[in-house]
Amino acid sequence: MRLYQIGEFSLIDRLRKAVQMRSNQVLLGIGDDAAVLRAHPQSDIILTTDALIEGVHFDLEYTPLESLGWKALAVNLSDIAAMGGSPLGATVSIAIPDRWRVEDVENLYAGLSRCAKTFRCPIVGGDTSRSLDGCFLSIAIAGETGLDQSVRRSGARVGDILCLTGEMGGAKTGLEALIQRTGKRRFKKSIRRFLEPIPRLEASSLLIRRLPVSSMIDVSDGLASEIQHLCMESDVGCSVDEERIPVSSEAIRWAKEQHKPLSSYRFESGEEYELLFTLPRKAVEKNRIFHRLAQSVSVSIIGEITVPSRGVQIRRRKKTVPMDFHGWNHFGKPSSLKSGKS
Amino acid sequence: MRLYQIGEFSLIDRLRKAVQMRSNQVLLGIGDDAAVLRAHPQSDIILTTDALIEGVHFDLEYTPLESLGWKALAVNLSDIAAMGGSPLGATVSIAIPDRWRVEDVENLYAGLSRCAKTFRCPIVGGDTSRSLDGCFLSIAIAGETGLDQSVRRSGARVGDILCLTGEMGGAKTGLEALIQRTGKRRFKKSIRRFLEPIPRLEASSLLIRRLPVSSMIDVSDGLASEIQHLCMESDVGCSVDEERIPVSSEAIRWAKEQHKPLSSYRFESGEEYELLFTLPRKAVEKNRIFHRLAQSVSVSIIGEITVPSRGVQIRRRKKTVPMDFHGWNHFGKPSSLKSGKS
Repeated sequence: MRLYQIGEFSLIDRLRKAVQMRSNQVLLGIGDDAAVLRAHPQSDIILTTDALIEGVHFDLEYTPLESLGWKALAVNLSDIAAMGGSPLGATVSIAIPDRWRVEDVENLYAGLSRCAKTFRCPIVGGDTSRSLDGCFLSIAIAGETGLDQSVRRSGARVGDILCLTGEMGGAKTGLEALIQRTGKRRFKKSIRRFLEPIPRLEASSLLIRRLPVSSMIDVSDGLASEIQHLCMESDVGCSVDEERIPVSSEAIRWAKEQHKPLSSYRFESGEEYELLFTLPRKAVEKNRIFHRLAQSVSVSIIGEITVPSRGVQIRRRKKTVPMDFHGWNHFGKPSSLKSGKS
Repeated sequence: MRLYQIGEFSLIDRLRKAVQMRSNQVLLGIGDDAAVLRAHPQSDIILTTDALIEGVHFDLEYTPLESLGWKALAVNLSDIAAMGGSPLGATVSIAIPDRWRVEDVENLYAGLSRCAKTFRCPIVGGDTSRSLDGCFLSIAIAGETGLDQSVRRSGARVGDILCLTGEMGGAKTGLEALIQRTGKRRFKKSIRRFLEPIPRLEASSLLIRRLPVSSMIDVSDGLASEIQHLCMESDVGCSVDEERIPVSSEAIRWAKEQHKPLSSYRFESGEEYELLFTLPRKAVEKNRIFHRLAQSVSVSIIGEITVPSRGVQIRRRKKTVPMDFHGWNHFGKPSSLKSGKS
């Protein structure tokens, strides 16, 4: 069915039903000038936005629309997780290409809705327009943390331990396998990870509640880039143990088959959406809570925070070298698939 | 200067400086995974988003970039006003065409920043990407109202009085004058109104504080369309006195010169960003507060709420006719300049 056959208000009505979910934090959802959300009385409000643009962040050749919907919300939820927060509600701003059918929009919203329900983040409003060119999808989320409890990039202190949830390399492996149209079965986990990433809201909430997390950031532009951001914002240096950074088994296999260095899958794999964070040394050493949590949410110790003059260094086979990997630069030459969070 | 010459992070740094302002409700602004805002302890959070898309909502042939920046924020602030709220902070999601120069982006942000400062709505974050085609600009605002104090579209009751701030027709006049490249001086006010609309935050705040406003909506798609929305959401009918709807003097002159019916400027002028609202009859009749406020924020009584079976009717030269004007339908045929808020 074509969009003009049902018109704008009927489309909005369908989408409204597609994303419907109960939530006692939503006093008023889609359908008014703005949504009304109820935060806890003792909370700070967090606000974030992230956009996905056709031809820049995604290619519909290999991205199912349902996955696109999931991902658009998931990447924003990852930012909420990285602040140590929980979501209150999201708005979806979308420009729909004229060539799309009603079913295409509904598929996208099915993915959005599935992600919204999985992570309990109701879709409370939006803006639906046509696009003369590609699809543009921008989501904003309002969330909350306890008063003065948000975890920032700037809190790392010299001597802190640098930790990472999960494994690296899967997203890059998934993207490359999709582009090369190969190994759909053999690299299934990686492809899924690239298409429908899991925001680490649960890990974040567990860590924050039990440990004095001093700084945190999510891995969206690649680990190297995030380590640099965290160090810059905290005005510290850092020494990273390359071999302690876990890489997924599929990424190891893929790198080998492709004759590519594994380090690139460790440091330059964007869109992993794991959490990079720091803890005071005494919260790690001989601390049972840390070790129990580290197991349950798979945390690895990957380095330590140093004085700023040391810069960001990598320990690789007993040698120490300055970090020489780069993240995405949106307006750099050559242009790359990604954008810059401000 | 070209964007690739300074790169993404240097661009973000410039934009961050361009929008810098002090606000004690911003605990953490641009530069982390999310912004942290402090609401009043007894408040509900409101969240809204609205996008402007090149070729759909604006044409750079006649829209200066600085005005585009202003307008993108102003239309979102108008939604906050329509809920009876005040803004806490805004995020800006932008896809920048490759052909733009650094100065173009800075001009747009100068307008954004001017609007942000005028209405005390700090820009607290965003997402900056490239666009392969046109510019896409989506803003989200988090705001607040007192607990259970938000004013909705659904609160109008039979017997309520229908009121409107300001005058209609200016925005349509301004757009048409811009498209026809005529009367830049003679229709200066209208052009300014179209390019840099004023969100009615002050009027909203005054009205809410002093009067029992039962429902409210902002006029973004044209008065006829908003009256229909308000009646539909409140499940009521309405009788509108056409001649009591004020039209700007420039619109009267323009309609005459263009040999167009004035009623179209009353009812079908989109993007006016005035407030349409209802009050219980007893809050209006013989009420000094109403009459004083009506003068200070220019409120006109334009009709009254009736039973739903009456539908939306217009009183025109002593006759009563059903309302036959239409607002924007984004995916309708033929396609029109505008989008649909959900």
